Amino acid sequence: MTAATLTISSRNYSSWSLRGWLLCVLAGLEVEEHMLSVDDPSARAELLLLSPSFLVPRLTHDGITVWDTLAIAAYLDEIRPQAGLLPKDAAARAHCRAICGEMHSGFANLRSALPMNLKAHYPGFKVWAGAQADIDRVTEIWRECLASHGGPYLFGKTLTMADAMYAPVCLRFLTYDVPLDPASQAYCKAISAWPALKRWIEAAKTEPEELEELDAEF
Amino acid sequence: MTAATLTISSRNYSSWSLRGWLLCVLAGLEVEEHMLSVDDPSARAELLLLSPSFLVPRLTHDGITVWDTLAIAAYLDEIRPQAGLLPKDAAARAHCRAICGEMHSGFANLRSALPMNLKAHYPGFKVWAGAQADIDRVTEIWRECLASHGGPYLFGKTLTMADAMYAPVCLRFLTYDVPLDPASQAYCKAISAWPALKRWIEAAKTEPEELEELDAEF
Repeated sequence: MTAATLTISSRNYSSWSLRGWLLCVLAGLEVEEHMLSVDDPSARAELLLLSPSFLVPRLTHDGITVWDTLAIAAYLDEIRPQAGLLPKDAAARAHCRAICGEMHSGFANLRSALPMNLKAHYPGFKVWAGAQADIDRVTEIWRECLASHGGPYLFGKTLTMADAMYAPVCLRFLTYDVPLDPASQAYCKAISAWPALKRWIEAAKTEPEELEELDAEF
Repeated sequence: MTAATLTISSRNYSSWSLRGWLLCVLAGLEVEEHMLSVDDPSARAELLLLSPSFLVPRLTHDGITVWDTLAIAAYLDEIRPQAGLLPKDAAARAHCRAICGEMHSGFANLRSALPMNLKAHYPGFKVWAGAQADIDRVTEIWRECLASHGGPYLFGKTLTMADAMYAPVCLRFLTYDVPLDPASQAYCKAISAWPALKRWIEAAKTEPEELEELDAEF
């Protein structure tokens, strides 16, 4: 097997690191994780949502370097076409990419108001209206997929890149105690049971608290 | 030929509509344009950069509906693999997708401070520091591509999806009189000579000014 490296930042705070890592797991690509120092200005900027980082996540494999989560997903799908990162049906595949694109470019209010923080739990957290509109769109996307493909995952019985893209949102909904419709609740429960995700969360919980000062800046 | 429809909003203001349209041109897919009314709340939200719209651009083709610009690009590449939307070399293809991803999810300061407005020209426009950082990253991306692949386009002698993604940025740099290094200047000049883009700009200039009130809200 060719050695692959995935550059990530915080396991606790970086939802894009998590997405990139889940995509590698789905593709069956074993990666050595390279964690950027919190003192790295690019890592800080990414964690503080100040800039789209081209350093995190970043995959190096077989002499090729690729960054940006969707580009990593497309690369993994090219090298592991049998892994099923994308649905086989053309219409479902287009739909899958569309909702992955929405997650990739959108939901800014959700991201800034409910930042990923796997160590935290805020029962009764008050969500402001702007973030609620994002939540409503996310759960609309989920309900449509679950109804069309029968669940338990967005495109049916097997996980796809869409689940990797939306998994951090499930975790945010749990952290911030967001009220959900039954279908969305069931989806979050199914994602929470994903063994790879559970491993990531366990590792996040033991992450040193060097990043504590970031909390104040969110 | 199967009838295809591309839903767009303003030709003058909507950079995502332009990107989707250029991608269809590159793919050689003839589309019937369906223009959303300015009164449509989703169109307004997209134009005001208030939300990622899942209505614009939106391609309907062969019974499949796909939205989000990158998802449209991936769909077009699937149905028109010979059109060369992506470079043939695997490393260049990964690089192309990575910089398309950066454009898709990032450069928020550039987008909000220098909104696309093809009818306007602001000589001596003062760019604030946050947007300048975005401009610096864009031109760094361009210089790296042009040096690696020899120009005149980002991945060499033929246009790819990366040029469609960055074309609106070239137009903004011209509108807002942004000082550029010689390589970036040459790239903007090459893109400005793209016949399809010239057709779009001509059409934008004759677009009714129903959208004038949006200017005040930018």
